[in-house]
Amino acid sequence: MVKDSQLDQMAADMSLARQRPSFDVKLMSTFLVGDEESFKEREEGRAILENEPLFDKEPLVFMSREERLRHGIKVATRLIELWEEHAWSPDQFAAAVKNVDMMTPVTLHYGAFIPVILNQGTDEQVQEWIGAALSHTIIGCYAQTELGHGSNVGGLMTTATFDKHSDEFVLHSPSLAAAKWWIGGLGVMSTHAVVQAQLIIDGKNYGPHIFVAPIRSLENHKPLPNILVGDIGPKAYGGFSSMDNGYLLFKEHRIPRKNMLMKFAKVDKNGVYRPPVHSKLSYGSMVKLRAGMVSEAGWKLGQAATVAIRYCTVRRQFQPANLNKADAPTDAPESQVISYSGLQHRLFPLISVAYGLIITGFSVNRLFDEMTEQLASENATLLPQVHVLTCGLKSWGTRRSCDGIEECRKAMGGHGYSAFSGLSDLFASYIPSNTYEGDNWILTQQVARFLVKELGRLANGKEISASTSYLARLASGDTSSSFRVSKVEQLTDLNVQVDLFATRAARVAFELGQALQSGRAWSDLNVECWNASVAHTEYTVMRAFADKVEEVKKDQFAPIHDTLKMLCDLFAVSNIVGVSQASFLATQTVHAADLPVINELYRSLLHRISKQAIPLTDAFGFSDKNLGSALGRHDGRAYEALWEAVQKNPINQEKWQQETYETIIKKLLHRNNSAEPVEKAKL
Amino acid sequence: MVKDSQLDQMAADMSLARQRPSFDVKLMSTFLVGDEESFKEREEGRAILENEPLFDKEPLVFMSREERLRHGIKVATRLIELWEEHAWSPDQFAAAVKNVDMMTPVTLHYGAFIPVILNQGTDEQVQEWIGAALSHTIIGCYAQTELGHGSNVGGLMTTATFDKHSDEFVLHSPSLAAAKWWIGGLGVMSTHAVVQAQLIIDGKNYGPHIFVAPIRSLENHKPLPNILVGDIGPKAYGGFSSMDNGYLLFKEHRIPRKNMLMKFAKVDKNGVYRPPVHSKLSYGSMVKLRAGMVSEAGWKLGQAATVAIRYCTVRRQFQPANLNKADAPTDAPESQVISYSGLQHRLFPLISVAYGLIITGFSVNRLFDEMTEQLASENATLLPQVHVLTCGLKSWGTRRSCDGIEECRKAMGGHGYSAFSGLSDLFASYIPSNTYEGDNWILTQQVARFLVKELGRLANGKEISASTSYLARLASGDTSSSFRVSKVEQLTDLNVQVDLFATRAARVAFELGQALQSGRAWSDLNVECWNASVAHTEYTVMRAFADKVEEVKKDQFAPIHDTLKMLCDLFAVSNIVGVSQASFLATQTVHAADLPVINELYRSLLHRISKQAIPLTDAFGFSDKNLGSALGRHDGRAYEALWEAVQKNPINQEKWQQETYETIIKKLLHRNNSAEPVEKAKL
Repeated sequence: MVKDSQLDQMAADMSLARQRPSFDVKLMSTFLVGDEESFKEREEGRAILENEPLFDKEPLVFMSREERLRHGIKVATRLIELWEEHAWSPDQFAAAVKNVDMMTPVTLHYGAFIPVILNQGTDEQVQEWIGAALSHTIIGCYAQTELGHGSNVGGLMTTATFDKHSDEFVLHSPSLAAAKWWIGGLGVMSTHAVVQAQLIIDGKNYGPHIFVAPIRSLENHKPLPNILVGDIGPKAYGGFSSMDNGYLLFKEHRIPRKNMLMKFAKVDKNGVYRPPVHSKLSYGSMVKLRAGMVSEAGWKLGQAATVAIRYCTVRRQFQPANLNKADAPTDAPESQVISYSGLQHRLFPLISVAYGLIITGFSVNRLFDEMTEQLASENATLLPQVHVLTCGLKSWGTRRSCDGIEECRKAMGGHGYSAFSGLSDLFASYIPSNTYEGDNWILTQQVARFLVKELGRLANGKEISASTSYLARLASGDTSSSFRVSKVEQLTDLNVQVDLFATRAARVAFELGQALQSGRAWSDLNVECWNASVAHTEYTVMRAFADKVEEVKKDQFAPIHDTLKMLCDLFAVSNIVGVSQASFLATQTVHAADLPVINELYRSLLHRISKQAIPLTDAFGFSDKNLGSALGRHDGRAYEALWEAVQKNPINQEKWQQETYETIIKKLLHRNNSAEPVEKAKL
Repeated sequence: MVKDSQLDQMAADMSLARQRPSFDVKLMSTFLVGDEESFKEREEGRAILENEPLFDKEPLVFMSREERLRHGIKVATRLIELWEEHAWSPDQFAAAVKNVDMMTPVTLHYGAFIPVILNQGTDEQVQEWIGAALSHTIIGCYAQTELGHGSNVGGLMTTATFDKHSDEFVLHSPSLAAAKWWIGGLGVMSTHAVVQAQLIIDGKNYGPHIFVAPIRSLENHKPLPNILVGDIGPKAYGGFSSMDNGYLLFKEHRIPRKNMLMKFAKVDKNGVYRPPVHSKLSYGSMVKLRAGMVSEAGWKLGQAATVAIRYCTVRRQFQPANLNKADAPTDAPESQVISYSGLQHRLFPLISVAYGLIITGFSVNRLFDEMTEQLASENATLLPQVHVLTCGLKSWGTRRSCDGIEECRKAMGGHGYSAFSGLSDLFASYIPSNTYEGDNWILTQQVARFLVKELGRLANGKEISASTSYLARLASGDTSSSFRVSKVEQLTDLNVQVDLFATRAARVAFELGQALQSGRAWSDLNVECWNASVAHTEYTVMRAFADKVEEVKKDQFAPIHDTLKMLCDLFAVSNIVGVSQASFLATQTVHAADLPVINELYRSLLHRISKQAIPLTDAFGFSDKNLGSALGRHDGRAYEALWEAVQKNPINQEKWQQETYETIIKKLLHRNNSAEPVEKAKL
């Protein structure tokens, strides 16, 4: 097709949107990745990776599940080759994996198999398996979840029975419900599995412990005797299609005693069991996984926001004066759809949530490092607090991020439903984050229980953790009176913002505590727990955001302070009048009569953001290859990109068309033409 | 695998849940489909269709896009054969298509091509094309949307220029943005297209009109000269994969003048244009499409609720007393997950929304028939009201339904992410309903404008429509005072329920009117329009639900009155304390201080529903084949169904595994083993 003026207009709209950023975009990018070194590393890594056509996302949309799975293995192999070619550090390799952004049958080898052995294995065990794992002569997976048990780890049914005579454990799946299920990397790839199984010695069950089991032959890759293993099939929305989530059943599969990971709990050759010194020490890795998910949620949402805001900047629809007269043609230029207040309301708060999550990720990491240092000296003081913090943030962050990604896709109207938008693959692969590493609903129970415990400590005059110190206001005579807005400027005061989120969170927690005191059971209070966790977590993000805004005043990021402040304001206000409005009103933290003035502030913030939406999303720093989106192209040429993508559609190849016509379409069209036409249809 | 006691427990749990329904399930089923005849027709049609393995849904999850598309054509062909074999009436055929529940390249032949010609063609035109269309010697599509224009029909760029000398129209696509795009049935199948194009005569543009254009050869199915046509590629989440949404560009493609559909507007051979008598008469078919989408939204949601509630009835997780001690094994039976208050809160209101949408569908259809009768005598009084009603309901219904489907999937935890849940295909194929037949956000503008017009009429003492009569309370001195609950029983009074929804809707509309009067522009008020439309529509559903509950007291459905009343209560209360809480509080329709007592009523309703959740979803009447879900099996044997499904996975076939190992996996595992192990990873 020849280019035409409308297509050039799109590119021009995009250039214009970038012309006058009110802040230094590169500095903002640096801020988001953490520091200049990380920024430089990202750019360098990208230069290598984007030279590899194997990592392009576009071709994936045309592949079948089988093709994608094979493709995933090729991608994993190529990444390993590059690791060696460039002598990457483990951090650089991890960054590369993240950049390529594709689940493969080897993803959990790095993400679970190796870390579990490193964390839970003795030195000898680490030596035995880690070398082989890092040279990829063995590939492993982490087999915890079963068909019948996910959240309830205690209920796992796989058994590991100690046989004193042979000094072996016998792994066994007593029923179909005991089949290991959903295990990433297990379906076709893994040679080994780290297995959670009930440890049984002399008929006594010691609960779930961890064992390393070979499952496939290292010679011909066939399943070992007594192993039933396979791939559990396609996932929702075509997600995880390049990953081989698998199932595994043991039929009295024997492994040597030394294959139980014994850094914490131990079993000697006489079957004497020694429990771990500290029952929670092994929780660290779960906390770490969830901690990493906080900023990840922000990046995923930032990716979707980048695509949607770019597309809505170049898409034009309706002349301004002609919104309601769909059938009157005119020559006036149409409006950029990003100029509509509805789309601004749907999209811009998502930018602030993405920034908020990334920023909160910084403080979570800081706290996590502090905790790790403590743990190294067997001090677990911070553990409960960090555990609860990550539970709440993982639950809230993955939900807001996934909801936001789908909202971005819908905001792009019809074309958002094309696989070429790139957002459908993003959503499909990311939505299980609502379930894995703890179901989002169940995690809120942990947060709520902690809050109630803290309320109890408070009532007894004991000290509470820094993360819940806001609860203290209840003790010092918090009534249910509302904050009243006398001047709208109050709401742009960071202290007021944090205070509002704190008040609301304290009141929600207090109500939960009261409900328990009135005799209601925990199991009857799931919704109240959810609400308390959400309120606590939104306070947490609000606080981290506000603290960071203050902090940057004094460091190299001072020049972007005002921009961050604007986003922080938007985060506060969009939650108060948006998704969390009911909670702010129900707790009487905010008064209904003040909503009009808060809404006015909200609109003025949306208006300010509208001038900076492209630079603010550019700052996430996604390349076109990262985005894999025709609609989110950096240069704004979305229609041309759609056209190019369509040309690669295998269905449009003449051979396919011809064959389909000859074998299938012809049969329909050239049927018995003499048949009587059917009664005129009332269709 | 041998069966075990846990699997039998699942079946037993399901039987138990069906053992004592408090209502006649078959009567409820009959009520939902409308009457006994429809019920009987559904059963009879099903008996035929479920004998056809081609219509099974399970194999689809393993197919590539190309395979699915070919499969879609086969399904369409088989449906046509059955139509003839069984001499179905058009209604029976339509019911069969609905039952098979698969988009095919012929779907819009029936759904758009034929209806548009029937509605907009002259008698001669109907005669020319409908016979051929019904005998399937031609297959057509409806080409309106373009790459650059969807919602703004007036902005379509395809032109149809009248050439007086040859008595032809010249169809032309002046740019890439003018390419017809998204057209169902166009990609590989259609021989003809009904095309919306700007009618140009002697240089004057008369706006979009409708033309019939042959596009593929009837002999060899190749595109005609000057036609560029193809498939636009895969959709989000793998949706619509058996449908060939296509693109189409014309290069001065000539069609005879008689190919303009001329029932309303006309062009004679001299190029004289005669406009339609009534500019809105052609709106009828759009209104009809949207009207049909109201109950459809209910059925889709009912389908998802059936699956999720069944699975959550047979899935057990955690011992009641052990919720917070994940690592302590015990032998106590675990709880059915449906017994958790959180899941009840997430799932049960969806049953009430599904029932509400189906019931509202009845009243919409009644009103639509009334309007059609009026229109036949050129009386368009009801048109604006029905137009607005269907805009609001389509927007609200498809959104609530799609959100609900995804909530159902997430409520099933990990296994909900398996394609075998059946809900991912449901969501993927249904989510574009948020966009087609009018984008959900844009439609709310229509509703809001109507409400504001009605407010204006009210202010001028003029009569307003029945559907908005609640606005009158504003005139008679509505203040912003809240309804206060003195006894919780008040809230189970249908009149009180309707009144609360009416008050809130009136206040939201009033605020919108005030904002306009204060000088804010419509384009600045998208969110306020959305809110007004939602409030109006929830009132509409509430009213239809309550009316129906009263109505059944007096007809053959009297025995299910109490059950419907319970669902109606749940609809009212779950909106007030659930998704619409912010709006009820912000308008001060409900007072925050009363929330605890309303929540208590909500919980007691959830508790009552919990005893009936399986019968209430059974009443939708979906067969296992309709559901196509391993998790939603009628007999509760979800794990066994998952296991059976996995056995068909092509990735588990030995040949595939062997080939993948030899060609790909081996390359990774048996790499240069002498390579130095990489530095011990910090992973």
